[in-house]
Amino acid sequence: MSIVKGNVVIGQSGGPTMVINQSLVGIIEEAKKHPEIGKIYGGLNGIAGMLEERFIDLGKESEANLERIALTPAAALGSCRFKPKEEDCFRLFEILKKYGVRYYFYIGGNDSAESADILNKIAMREKYELRVFHVPKTIDNDLRENDHTPGYASASKYVIHSFMGNDLDSTAIPGVKLDIVMGRNAGWLTASAALAKDPNDKDSGPHLIYLPEAPVTIEQMSKDILSVHANLGRCLIAVSEGVVDKNTGKSFADSLIDEVDSHGNKQLSGTGALGDYLVAQIKEYAEQNGVKKLRIRSDTLGYAQRSFAGFRSNIDAHEARMVGNMAVRYAVKDDIDGSVAIKRISDSPYKSDFVHVELSKVAKITRDLPHEFINDKSNYVTDAFVEYLRPLIDEIPTIGKLNKDIIKL
Amino acid sequence: MSIVKGNVVIGQSGGPTMVINQSLVGIIEEAKKHPEIGKIYGGLNGIAGMLEERFIDLGKESEANLERIALTPAAALGSCRFKPKEEDCFRLFEILKKYGVRYYFYIGGNDSAESADILNKIAMREKYELRVFHVPKTIDNDLRENDHTPGYASASKYVIHSFMGNDLDSTAIPGVKLDIVMGRNAGWLTASAALAKDPNDKDSGPHLIYLPEAPVTIEQMSKDILSVHANLGRCLIAVSEGVVDKNTGKSFADSLIDEVDSHGNKQLSGTGALGDYLVAQIKEYAEQNGVKKLRIRSDTLGYAQRSFAGFRSNIDAHEARMVGNMAVRYAVKDDIDGSVAIKRISDSPYKSDFVHVELSKVAKITRDLPHEFINDKSNYVTDAFVEYLRPLIDEIPTIGKLNKDIIKL
Repeated sequence: MSIVKGNVVIGQSGGPTMVINQSLVGIIEEAKKHPEIGKIYGGLNGIAGMLEERFIDLGKESEANLERIALTPAAALGSCRFKPKEEDCFRLFEILKKYGVRYYFYIGGNDSAESADILNKIAMREKYELRVFHVPKTIDNDLRENDHTPGYASASKYVIHSFMGNDLDSTAIPGVKLDIVMGRNAGWLTASAALAKDPNDKDSGPHLIYLPEAPVTIEQMSKDILSVHANLGRCLIAVSEGVVDKNTGKSFADSLIDEVDSHGNKQLSGTGALGDYLVAQIKEYAEQNGVKKLRIRSDTLGYAQRSFAGFRSNIDAHEARMVGNMAVRYAVKDDIDGSVAIKRISDSPYKSDFVHVELSKVAKITRDLPHEFINDKSNYVTDAFVEYLRPLIDEIPTIGKLNKDIIKL
Repeated sequence: MSIVKGNVVIGQSGGPTMVINQSLVGIIEEAKKHPEIGKIYGGLNGIAGMLEERFIDLGKESEANLERIALTPAAALGSCRFKPKEEDCFRLFEILKKYGVRYYFYIGGNDSAESADILNKIAMREKYELRVFHVPKTIDNDLRENDHTPGYASASKYVIHSFMGNDLDSTAIPGVKLDIVMGRNAGWLTASAALAKDPNDKDSGPHLIYLPEAPVTIEQMSKDILSVHANLGRCLIAVSEGVVDKNTGKSFADSLIDEVDSHGNKQLSGTGALGDYLVAQIKEYAEQNGVKKLRIRSDTLGYAQRSFAGFRSNIDAHEARMVGNMAVRYAVKDDIDGSVAIKRISDSPYKSDFVHVELSKVAKITRDLPHEFINDKSNYVTDAFVEYLRPLIDEIPTIGKLNKDIIKL
């Protein structure tokens, strides 16, 4: 096996996360250690920017600034949602050759792995010696071969803090509160709301969780909600933006939103349409079933889930750094292409390892929340899911509550 | 002046904040120090719950649990949005007498101060010896006589972190992003988004801020946005939920939302309607003016602004505790009714003081963002506002950015 000598280029793609720049800095710091590697270039705005020859010299950045960048959310290089066609890949080769690039690292989710895989296949066919590595990143946690993905635990931690606050808020001013959580096709992030439940308070929320993997009707959802509301005087619900209407087999959002990106994905974020639609439907069902003037609100948690400043799971930050490190080690030392996947070794104390996987195994097809993590009623997660996620969240605030025994005079 | 002897009751009212329970614990800890005070009761869900004789014994709570509660967002006693009528106040007297209550502390905003004022006036008329104190709390920062109100700085800190993340997010994936911020009538909280601007990056956002105090037309807003977008390729906008249409003199939300609470306030939170409406209007204006397929998104920041768990400005937490302490001292030692207001003494180092004000001076009428805090174009805040808010936010994350000089080969 010959060790390839040449320059590195790094790109970032897809939606931002709170720790995506840890991976960027992880690649840079590891690349600096290897004499085979010359220049370390950054491609601005992923493949889209590279095709316009928008490269910067990452070798010039001070260590102190790189550490600040590692703690900064959202892709420091800029991102793109661009799926290269075959002719784009040919053009990219010519550009990479011109810049002496032999190591190509692309940080992203399954769409990005797909882009990397396309690039890699054409590179092999063209006999262009290029090490292509996908570095995993997605708050959706839907990459196959991974126990979990960098970015997920930090987004989950945000969702947990948000639901903890919402549960206290809706205890203080009772009503029905429905929060829409990101996650196009997989319910991983929505499921994480379950960790907001106060272990010392059986009545605490969220009380219901609806996931894309468990289709539901408006009628069933409304029944579930009214049942909790009748019992507790309130109800907190986590709903995935990709939740599927059991009657049509399509997501509720599908009928509400037109815009799609170049990967054929619907625009689900940056609109309150789904939440407002569900609120109206549930309210109507409630009225028809004798529950008048139901106080029901919806928040769509929004971009803060992936980019709230100064917020992260430290375990996630560490792992995001490590997948960057490891991608370089595999590419340089083992002279292979592929992706880096996280394997869990133990829960207590929590330990993980980083292994090499083939690009085709993580590209395109996503990983759903498995059946054993969803309850029989399709309206909550199981304890097994909570046990899965808990070790990845470094810190959950302690909640204080009053003893509410009413005084009898 | 005779010192009244008797029991205390504490109530919490209106929207939650991240530090409202600091004030609750501040009242309890100070009340325990005064031999004039017997039992310390908590009234559940404000006046509404007190009228149902739902009192708990706060004296039984351990110090450790009270400290946990102080760090927990949203009203621990439960809240209400209930405006008592005169007959409710008479009934409340009878109940308070029955429970031996002589000290009444009500934590809330201007509506709550109004409730306290009504109660106090009837108490005086009826010659019932009752010390009535309003303890300030509102993320809206719109209480008169106060430099700022407990709850505001923590909510501002959340808004700042959210906008910092949104600005990085919309730099990574450029487009127009419009975020709706809480604040029914006053733009204080929306204005705080300005502190998210990176002092080391002149192009950073938010780029535009629209406030209820500075009415705007859709046309002007769209022009402003397209101008920034043409210049930077993106635009981040903070819009108050109460922003007013210059053409009609009414808030845009007014025409979209029907539901009102018992104080006559419109339901502005818990719906994405305003954001989605503005997005549609701006998109239409853009298309009509030759800007096709504008990528424009909106998030409505939602309840997390007032109740995100484990999050606060430490200065805010301290001051919220102190207004609770001081209300008890004024009521017991000085034997007076009223409210406690925060006065700023110095900015650097930041120091504040707590003074007595009359109930009628903080009740009902709110305090707008003053003219000198809004720019001439009515689309941003002034430096004076940034200087006003900065000392109240204990910590803003440092952001790291890459030098993006494009390499020329």
